[in-house]
Amino acid sequence: MLSAAIDYARSNYPRFLDELKDLIRIPSVSTLPEHKSDVLAAAQWLGRELTRIGMDHVEVITTPGHPLVYADWLHAPGKPTCLCYGHYDVQPPDPLDEWHSPPFEPTERNGNLYARGAVDDKGQMYMQVKALEALFAANKGKLPINIRVILEGEEEVGGEQIARFIREHSDLLKSDFALVCDTEMFAPELPTLCIGLRGLIYTEIEARGAKSDLHSGMYGGAAPNPFVALAQIIAQLKDGSGRLLIPGFYDAVRRPSDDELRAWQHLPFEEEHFRLTEVGSSRLTGEPGYSVLERTWARPTLDVHGMPGGFTGAGAKTVIPAKAIAKISMRLVPDQTPQQAFAQYKSYVESIRPDGIELDVRLIHSGDPIVVGTDNPYIQAATRALKKVWGKDTVFIRSGGSIPIVGDFERHLKIPSVLMGFGLPDDQIHAPNEKFHIANFYRGIESIIEFMNEVAV
Amino acid sequence: MLSAAIDYARSNYPRFLDELKDLIRIPSVSTLPEHKSDVLAAAQWLGRELTRIGMDHVEVITTPGHPLVYADWLHAPGKPTCLCYGHYDVQPPDPLDEWHSPPFEPTERNGNLYARGAVDDKGQMYMQVKALEALFAANKGKLPINIRVILEGEEEVGGEQIARFIREHSDLLKSDFALVCDTEMFAPELPTLCIGLRGLIYTEIEARGAKSDLHSGMYGGAAPNPFVALAQIIAQLKDGSGRLLIPGFYDAVRRPSDDELRAWQHLPFEEEHFRLTEVGSSRLTGEPGYSVLERTWARPTLDVHGMPGGFTGAGAKTVIPAKAIAKISMRLVPDQTPQQAFAQYKSYVESIRPDGIELDVRLIHSGDPIVVGTDNPYIQAATRALKKVWGKDTVFIRSGGSIPIVGDFERHLKIPSVLMGFGLPDDQIHAPNEKFHIANFYRGIESIIEFMNEVAV
Repeated sequence: MLSAAIDYARSNYPRFLDELKDLIRIPSVSTLPEHKSDVLAAAQWLGRELTRIGMDHVEVITTPGHPLVYADWLHAPGKPTCLCYGHYDVQPPDPLDEWHSPPFEPTERNGNLYARGAVDDKGQMYMQVKALEALFAANKGKLPINIRVILEGEEEVGGEQIARFIREHSDLLKSDFALVCDTEMFAPELPTLCIGLRGLIYTEIEARGAKSDLHSGMYGGAAPNPFVALAQIIAQLKDGSGRLLIPGFYDAVRRPSDDELRAWQHLPFEEEHFRLTEVGSSRLTGEPGYSVLERTWARPTLDVHGMPGGFTGAGAKTVIPAKAIAKISMRLVPDQTPQQAFAQYKSYVESIRPDGIELDVRLIHSGDPIVVGTDNPYIQAATRALKKVWGKDTVFIRSGGSIPIVGDFERHLKIPSVLMGFGLPDDQIHAPNEKFHIANFYRGIESIIEFMNEVAV
Repeated sequence: MLSAAIDYARSNYPRFLDELKDLIRIPSVSTLPEHKSDVLAAAQWLGRELTRIGMDHVEVITTPGHPLVYADWLHAPGKPTCLCYGHYDVQPPDPLDEWHSPPFEPTERNGNLYARGAVDDKGQMYMQVKALEALFAANKGKLPINIRVILEGEEEVGGEQIARFIREHSDLLKSDFALVCDTEMFAPELPTLCIGLRGLIYTEIEARGAKSDLHSGMYGGAAPNPFVALAQIIAQLKDGSGRLLIPGFYDAVRRPSDDELRAWQHLPFEEEHFRLTEVGSSRLTGEPGYSVLERTWARPTLDVHGMPGGFTGAGAKTVIPAKAIAKISMRLVPDQTPQQAFAQYKSYVESIRPDGIELDVRLIHSGDPIVVGTDNPYIQAATRALKKVWGKDTVFIRSGGSIPIVGDFERHLKIPSVLMGFGLPDDQIHAPNEKFHIANFYRGIESIIEFMNEVAV
């Protein structure tokens, strides 16, 4: 059965890729209200596809936000149940003028598929669907293990609906482990399992000064300026070296084990190559005394994403804006919690409020940091599957990104997650010219097929 | 003749106001390329009107930017020549949702005319046109003095075209003094001449970090963040008390005379009333040890107007933007010069450049600070005219705003400017719900009529 499923997949790859392109063409940008119907269309497209390949109980579940897509196939008694997770929403494509081909017109170049969502997460989510199709086709309409599928449309905006669904319907999702395909390989050709994720608090600080916009000639020197106030606050959140200045923020940070730190030193990582090819800045920044991998995987960080307000057009407008906003997020690591981190941040920001300014410090969304043990049996089955497809031992890494759903699976379903991802470090996720290496799409499908079979043994 | 012109004006006020409304309805926003044809339309409208009232040599002068409108009437031998200046371009109306009536649909409420440009500067500019019409009508097609009119469409974006025209064609504008109606009265019913203006340098700092936008999960802790860098820079430009930290910036600042400072103390100004009714913030800010009038009229200041870049939409996008911009201006006072101030600022900003960030510090536009003496004969003629119309002695103030044209008149035409303005402190220029007190529009016309006659004596 094993090779039959892989044979089926291989003989259908061109069609699989065409189908993925159709899904990508639906601009399901979850954060923009004008794309609400596109997000729904992507959900319905996936519902039809899950029905077509042979899943039972396919349902597009409406919610107060974007819909969830559920399906199951539970006819393998005595076998484990896998909860396949993915998300079909994408980040906004802006800035549009930096794309070499339109973000929602998937384009093949140099063996890659370029488009918003190509790898994050439509392409990686669709690997699971196609692996299931191949297993059904090769096994006369049966699967080697029990499968539940849950797909969400709000991953890029905090995943509120799926989090609520898991909290309220944990019985409906009862499984033994989850398979999450939304991470990346450490390097090309290096099979990778991600066993740790940073958490997140995404916040806004709104600063208000004058009651309305004022002329900076008439009032400059007397009226408080909300942008100057936000700049003063931000400059006090993080020092010049990159260390956060929020009191108590580092107290709960757990240092990775010596074994884990030693293993990271043997990963094929060259700081100068990373700087030149991935970041491209004149130098890297961050806390002194920590390696780049530690800084991005195992240390909390703070970034400012945008500062809406005032005049942002071309040319000059001499306005003192009545208000301005800073969109600021912090990455968290075990054992920090979003609740405590936000409380520390809010309290500190309010304590350094500049004169004449009122502040509103709000939490937009959050996610828990997590770490999974390498001795977990599903992690071990995954390493065997990856060895078969890629011919190499798996490396265990962490990710600096946040997948809040993994924390929800752990907390509410009491199950571990296998984070098996096939993105590459230069895939430009969330940025212009996002891509997915097409060979990884294919081998990802094969890896999932092998994984399901390993779990069934 | 004097009372005949005033009589004519009074019997034509409703028509004058209707004409002004027509001019205001043309959305001549000079900074927005999509309004280029509206700016031209406003120029052509004014050209037709100047021809209709009896001016000679009316010309809409095309330039590489927005047009100039020129007219003259030079048939009063032995009499002085007045150069009437105004601008027909306006600031952008945003934020639109804070207007109580549409910005380009002039609306009368409580004796005021609400619209973008009502007072800055269409209404005040049009007072001059209507004063000339009344003088022509009352004097059989003649004026009491020689008049040149020059109107520009780029005042709100730096006035590059008129500055170049004055530089290159100073012979065509040869005059004895300029009349500029673009300032405000210190208080309602208090005739005011503005004898000092702050200068300006309007700049942008562009900060660049990574070569493209990056995911803050993957790269947070290693990639430089341009917004954090700009915040660190801004926090080092001005301390918490409002004092600028640019080395040498205060060296050229000339303290107002003791007489001038004493006179300011007798102006009807209450700091708490100003705070509550005009600014509306929880407290005023600015350099310790200086009064509000000193801080806004006679001290340099720095404001941030907007910080374009990154993600500014609703919701969350976890991006480390490749670049961000801060739009920052500084007001200058005698004897600072824009050239030196910008050089000091640029050099200081570059000296505090955060690690991993490249900076581009650019000057968008600038204007000289100026002070005019109260013993000037045209200033004295103006005070006599204002006494007749308003029944009160004139107060001499400065303005914190910048009218670069006044510096150009001084430098290239070697003439002083009479800044006779009839705006009010709560007119909300450059902000939503800009207004012009309609009675001031009428009495402004009468003041200009009397002024022309006083100059002719």
